[in-house]
Amino acid sequence: MTPDRARRPGPTVRTRVHELTPTGEHAREDRLVTEEPLEIRLAWPGAPARRVWVTMRTPGHDFELATGWLVHEGLTRSVQGVAYCTDADLAPEQEFNVVTVTLAAPPLHDPGHRHAAESSGSSACGVCGKDSVTAALAAPRAEPWSGELPTPDVVRSLPGLLRAGQAVFSRTGGVHAAGLFTAAGEALVVREDVGRHNAVDKVTGARVLAGDSPAEAVLVVSGRAGFELVQKAIAAGVGSLVAVGAPTSLSVALARESGLALFGFTSGERCVRYT
Amino acid sequence: MTPDRARRPGPTVRTRVHELTPTGEHAREDRLVTEEPLEIRLAWPGAPARRVWVTMRTPGHDFELATGWLVHEGLTRSVQGVAYCTDADLAPEQEFNVVTVTLAAPPLHDPGHRHAAESSGSSACGVCGKDSVTAALAAPRAEPWSGELPTPDVVRSLPGLLRAGQAVFSRTGGVHAAGLFTAAGEALVVREDVGRHNAVDKVTGARVLAGDSPAEAVLVVSGRAGFELVQKAIAAGVGSLVAVGAPTSLSVALARESGLALFGFTSGERCVRYT
Repeated sequence: MTPDRARRPGPTVRTRVHELTPTGEHAREDRLVTEEPLEIRLAWPGAPARRVWVTMRTPGHDFELATGWLVHEGLTRSVQGVAYCTDADLAPEQEFNVVTVTLAAPPLHDPGHRHAAESSGSSACGVCGKDSVTAALAAPRAEPWSGELPTPDVVRSLPGLLRAGQAVFSRTGGVHAAGLFTAAGEALVVREDVGRHNAVDKVTGARVLAGDSPAEAVLVVSGRAGFELVQKAIAAGVGSLVAVGAPTSLSVALARESGLALFGFTSGERCVRYT
Repeated sequence: MTPDRARRPGPTVRTRVHELTPTGEHAREDRLVTEEPLEIRLAWPGAPARRVWVTMRTPGHDFELATGWLVHEGLTRSVQGVAYCTDADLAPEQEFNVVTVTLAAPPLHDPGHRHAAESSGSSACGVCGKDSVTAALAAPRAEPWSGELPTPDVVRSLPGLLRAGQAVFSRTGGVHAAGLFTAAGEALVVREDVGRHNAVDKVTGARVLAGDSPAEAVLVVSGRAGFELVQKAIAAGVGSLVAVGAPTSLSVALARESGLALFGFTSGERCVRYT
């Protein structure tokens, strides 16, 4: 049974708000970014579907989000199928909040190794489910990047190109975006989500589901570049990470160690290279 | 044995960077916000310390972070003691990354009920460890707020007052802040962290460790107001949540249901009331 598509939540919802300025108050209609939980289940030959993650996310591109998350966790490099769950005991309003990813072969490591079956994450989560301080720091190692690197001119142009692809932000102001670009600055895929990490999962997932490599030249993010985003960039195999915001001590250390070119505070006027 | 305080990481670290502008490149020294993992362990009479959480955070006010997190999870309303862990098998560089909180009585619910012992979270995590879509949405219920509410003039002044208390942001541009204020706009406590949720945990923890109630009139956050921040505000018992950024569909729904006054897009010129 396919869930009823009319129930499917959109990326924004309308609501009535009151705007309060020094000269008075007026009621108006506003749009909010939609935030809903997504449960990811994983199945492979001989293994029943099991829950591996719960995240708060903006509905849309859910199959990409689930696929990208699994790739960034190092669990797989390709998927056989993705579908909304049709459990009879699922509440109707959760119909589009549970996705099952099926692999053609067992995952590359035990999903319970870094993530207990019961663990889950939020819209901004990267190290959830890792079961100790040491495990949280054990990042996947990158192959040395042998591709083309963007010039400083291209790097400075990327936030503007990313912003041009942000449809939901224009309407709500409440979402992050991520995009994969060629070294020449050509946009391959741009995705938005209430969670910074989800947007990165979605762009990687989009490439994998399209049969393309997620290891493109440049990953661009609308926010800061924390440790977990650097981890995802390395897991996806990209050569450069360009952030509009600031990096952290740990993200710079990991990028240097892994041969990832890391740029922060990027705008049309300047950018800062940390590696 | 008390860990060696000289090893203690500060809130920022220095690094060498390259700034790239259209007219050229120059090297300079920069400051990065420090990001390190923190493991929270919980002990009570008759129960050995067990790990309940791992989060990425900015070092500093770690005891407040651990205490506030436990209060927001509904596990306790007070703590007997907090200390850095001195396990002999802990790597020296992790000495200040593990905190044990001791309660005078068993926690109000099983820490494994919502959070498996192995689960952990990131610097921006709120629903990690919740083991299903339904559990992620099961928010604590607020007592109806009977205190004073801030006037619109006070609400619009709060982001500026919060910003004035942000020492680390001025140096790195990479951190979020949270503050508790009276309805008249008097700052009670302001804390910063690389993670938005951690900053909120720290202000609640600061009040609890000082023997004060965390249920102050107004919680102010420097970023957006997602679902998990509304959950924490309700768990702490505050009357209003004022965000500089946007709320989400789920955060507005929960605030309305729980009688929490929610403001977004707050600046000196305007604010938007959602409830």
